[in-house]
Amino acid sequence: MSKNVAVIGYGVVGSGTVELFMKNREAINKKIGRDCDIKYILDLRDFPESPFADMIIHDFDTILNDDEIEVVAEVVGGTTFAYEYTKKLLAKGKSVVTSNKALVAAYGAELLQLAQDNGCSYLFEASVGGGIPIIRPLNKCLAGNEIQQISGILNGTTNFILTKMIKDQMSFEDALKLAQQLGYAEADPTADVEGEDACRKICILGSLVYGKHIYPEMVHKSGITRITLDDVEYADNAGYVIKLIASVKRLEDNSLSAIVCPRLVPKSNMLASVDDVYNAVSVTGDGVGDVLFYGQGAGKLPTASAVVGDIIDCLRHNGRSLGIHWEESKKDEKFVVRYKDINCSMYVRLKGDDVQALKPSISEMFGKLMYIERANRPDDELAFITPNMVESDIDANLAILSHSAEIASKIRMF
Amino acid sequence: MSKNVAVIGYGVVGSGTVELFMKNREAINKKIGRDCDIKYILDLRDFPESPFADMIIHDFDTILNDDEIEVVAEVVGGTTFAYEYTKKLLAKGKSVVTSNKALVAAYGAELLQLAQDNGCSYLFEASVGGGIPIIRPLNKCLAGNEIQQISGILNGTTNFILTKMIKDQMSFEDALKLAQQLGYAEADPTADVEGEDACRKICILGSLVYGKHIYPEMVHKSGITRITLDDVEYADNAGYVIKLIASVKRLEDNSLSAIVCPRLVPKSNMLASVDDVYNAVSVTGDGVGDVLFYGQGAGKLPTASAVVGDIIDCLRHNGRSLGIHWEESKKDEKFVVRYKDINCSMYVRLKGDDVQALKPSISEMFGKLMYIERANRPDDELAFITPNMVESDIDANLAILSHSAEIASKIRMF
Repeated sequence: MSKNVAVIGYGVVGSGTVELFMKNREAINKKIGRDCDIKYILDLRDFPESPFADMIIHDFDTILNDDEIEVVAEVVGGTTFAYEYTKKLLAKGKSVVTSNKALVAAYGAELLQLAQDNGCSYLFEASVGGGIPIIRPLNKCLAGNEIQQISGILNGTTNFILTKMIKDQMSFEDALKLAQQLGYAEADPTADVEGEDACRKICILGSLVYGKHIYPEMVHKSGITRITLDDVEYADNAGYVIKLIASVKRLEDNSLSAIVCPRLVPKSNMLASVDDVYNAVSVTGDGVGDVLFYGQGAGKLPTASAVVGDIIDCLRHNGRSLGIHWEESKKDEKFVVRYKDINCSMYVRLKGDDVQALKPSISEMFGKLMYIERANRPDDELAFITPNMVESDIDANLAILSHSAEIASKIRMF
Repeated sequence: MSKNVAVIGYGVVGSGTVELFMKNREAINKKIGRDCDIKYILDLRDFPESPFADMIIHDFDTILNDDEIEVVAEVVGGTTFAYEYTKKLLAKGKSVVTSNKALVAAYGAELLQLAQDNGCSYLFEASVGGGIPIIRPLNKCLAGNEIQQISGILNGTTNFILTKMIKDQMSFEDALKLAQQLGYAEADPTADVEGEDACRKICILGSLVYGKHIYPEMVHKSGITRITLDDVEYADNAGYVIKLIASVKRLEDNSLSAIVCPRLVPKSNMLASVDDVYNAVSVTGDGVGDVLFYGQGAGKLPTASAVVGDIIDCLRHNGRSLGIHWEESKKDEKFVVRYKDINCSMYVRLKGDDVQALKPSISEMFGKLMYIERANRPDDELAFITPNMVESDIDANLAILSHSAEIASKIRMF
């Protein structure tokens, strides 16, 4: 019996990790091929009521200096302590597994290199899509493919809010309140609703498949706070639902496009059926075509499922580095193209007393476009979908229109 | 540069495997960490027009006796040559990767043991769901879970036929003909439409997660040949679609339930949205909850994607056995429970001049049940959904009813 596992952080994911590992320990040890157990749980607090109270410690060095410890689950979050701890552990040859997307998005290349240099592993299946298997499938199962694009619903909170807006005609504000009541959204929901969380995750997936660190600062993001029920209704009428989509794509010149924003997704696309707090990732490869991974993108046990899967993989391969690697990059490198320079098609909603009279000018600006309708459309409203064109050209046209009408909404098409 | 890969069988999957490997070879070699290449393609035929004509050989022993060969892709199919070749290769310590579901379903336990004993690997990601990552996610990412059930649409041909019946009101016969014209169905479609193909695949998934070889002979299967447009219409009206579902499940006493049959799937379930030749696998684990994997379940390049992914994994870990293992079992062992002894709910359609008069007896037999309707239902027809009960009890009731009416259809609910 080796007591060779430690857990740093006994919050939601940490306690789920301990719970799941202990519950299935017998089967897990069979899979590892030897008896393994958790030795320490590091947290600032004590948990006298916990069945695992005797494992709680407060001093990180106990873990660092214990030669029996092979794998550490860093589930404390943040980029301060977590960063220091992870570096020290990897430098000592101890593998680290994590659900910490902020840390992987900020320091992934450095930490992966450190793991490789020290013959151990840095795994982060739990950092994207909670329990949904996505990192390992991309890195292994789909390794024979050139990945053409990844698009995902990577944030459960915003997907819950949008689902309530679409299915129950709740306003954004009411849906956010409900999400907070149910514990799906934080008191300060900024990181979710402004797309920061989804942005970190698409950076991790993009770095993994394109081999170079994509920093969140390189990726344009816009959130869902300005989506209205009017937009939801136009979208529905035209055969679409609005989803917050994070995507990364290789362009013809090998540069990348990466963006997080709400999009009108055709109802026939599987991503349109992903409701509530569920996440999904759609991947297109030159061999496999389209594949989709779907499941609970957050939560105690789903996230713990991915953490424990990584722990098992490390324990199966102790003393060897599991081959995940991407190159470091500089934050001011320009391999992610400016989003305004990329082609897209845009849903636009105009408001103004004379909007109907603008139709000839709009047709002249955009060429072939599609007007869309909704029941009881007010006379001062006009909605249309532009053809596919460079986004800055769309904006230039809208800037001209803005002299005659208010640009009430613009949302990219999927 | 090592010319360390061989491909056995230059049919659809074999040519796709060579094509994809050669196309992405530079990126693949970067992932492996050394230069690797294909040396031989074994086939009975010559392919003088092929760009890879000079790799074609006809003698298996050339591969077996070449020490440079580390990995062999067995994509010849069947259980005769493929079985002999695979055993000989593994016994020599050469890893084998395959898309051959018939072989894995028939001899998986034996071949995995042989690989383990000889320090090499036997991988078969391509054998289930074509290019969809499913074997590795189950074996690694979800290893921390107790898997409660797996349900999948695992056969693209039947899913295409059912989609045409549901969306275009084509009859089974016409849809089958169309599938044959499009190359989705064989001239003899038995293995697909009778559920044999899906049965092999669910046996592989069940063996993998429950650790014991499930032989196809242990699993009850019924196909889709008797599904009518009448049934499709009743299902639609009640909020369901009919799909061929393969499933395996752990029961409370640790025995297993495994069955392949058409089922009425609620439209709200993601599996109901899986159309045409696409496949999907839904997995429920005690940590992760429900996850779903979706993509093209067959075809040249999708299947090749999985084969090449396995080749890469073997080359990354040459000289080591990648840990997949399940125990051998005897075909007459009884750990898969007789399907008639398991609870289910059933859609039933009766035909007969006096069917309406049977309602009181039906209610007495089944207790609380639900009658369902369709537009212009003929007077001599009655359709209902039974409560959840042991299947043999449902059958006993239907046997009594069969004296007064024809049991035109019975299809299990999902």
